[in-house]
Amino acid sequence: MKLLEDRIRKDGTVIGTGIVKVDSFLNHQMDPVLLDQLAAEFAERFQDAGATKVLTIEASGIAVAVLTALRMNVPAVYAKKSVSATIGKEYYTARVHSFTHDTDCDIALSKAYLNAEDRVLLIDDFLAEGEAMRGLTALCEQAGAEVAGIGVCVEKAFQPGGKWLREKGCHVESLAAIASIDHGVITFCSDPE
Amino acid sequence: MKLLEDRIRKDGTVIGTGIVKVDSFLNHQMDPVLLDQLAAEFAERFQDAGATKVLTIEASGIAVAVLTALRMNVPAVYAKKSVSATIGKEYYTARVHSFTHDTDCDIALSKAYLNAEDRVLLIDDFLAEGEAMRGLTALCEQAGAEVAGIGVCVEKAFQPGGKWLREKGCHVESLAAIASIDHGVITFCSDPE
Repeated sequence: MKLLEDRIRKDGTVIGTGIVKVDSFLNHQMDPVLLDQLAAEFAERFQDAGATKVLTIEASGIAVAVLTALRMNVPAVYAKKSVSATIGKEYYTARVHSFTHDTDCDIALSKAYLNAEDRVLLIDDFLAEGEAMRGLTALCEQAGAEVAGIGVCVEKAFQPGGKWLREKGCHVESLAAIASIDHGVITFCSDPE
Repeated sequence: MKLLEDRIRKDGTVIGTGIVKVDSFLNHQMDPVLLDQLAAEFAERFQDAGATKVLTIEASGIAVAVLTALRMNVPAVYAKKSVSATIGKEYYTARVHSFTHDTDCDIALSKAYLNAEDRVLLIDDFLAEGEAMRGLTALCEQAGAEVAGIGVCVEKAFQPGGKWLREKGCHVESLAAIASIDHGVITFCSDPE
């Protein structure tokens, strides 16, 4: 999606090799108009997926997930990054490793909000190693729910998450797929060679 | 706001005395159509506040904050619930106590996204003891930014947060103000006596 690629080139901050920060418009400060355009794109790309629910993980996926759910007219749900008393006694859980922070956390989702009737569109801001999506697909498996599709704003295509999900048979759509980040230069998969 | 009060009566779950769970539509599973209506109400109530930014705290405030920011055509920012490497070296921080979990956390906001020119609309899902708002107003003070208003979806008016903020001179708008939760019965401040 050219709109997002252009914005990443304009406002993203490349750090060393392999890291681009987009926290001025996507995941700390958020440009709501841009996010709504990304949501519209997800809604269009997954219009035939038959999704009954949008699922994301706190915190940075929530904004684009709720905007997507609004356009698709289905509920949104977010997995929590810890098991707290407020979630009740019945929940799905999966362990997720954060490569950014080098920590593990147990994500949790109340059983009340996902079941075997659901077709789930997974939405997140980033897809890199694929750990968050691995956790979310595990929650869907526990619920017996079908993954109707996976939409991510930015895919770091040089990391294995997207490949793993596609090999698993998932329909993955990334709005900006980064082929490489090298010496300050971002190359998108859509760039001419 | 009758729409939200009716929804709380219909789908809220009262637990003992003083607690109502609204996680089927507001802060775990989210009804995006409802949230967008709440956002529209915030945008109307604060249309003359001159807000340049919407500020919330992860995770449960993000959805309604971004929808409000979209309607007000300003950026949204969320304070993070921990200080991580990704936030950079320059950030505002404040300690916030969670009565729900009986823990303290240091919230953090990059200095890049709040400054003395900003007029800030603070948005959150709940206002009870006022700890989260205390933290967010502290971040604004550190930035030299003015608090243009405070909008919360649900205020537990029998807890001291709202009173403290109003005495401080803040313009606080709550869309559903709960006077009491007693023996399974929710009474709103707007109910006839």
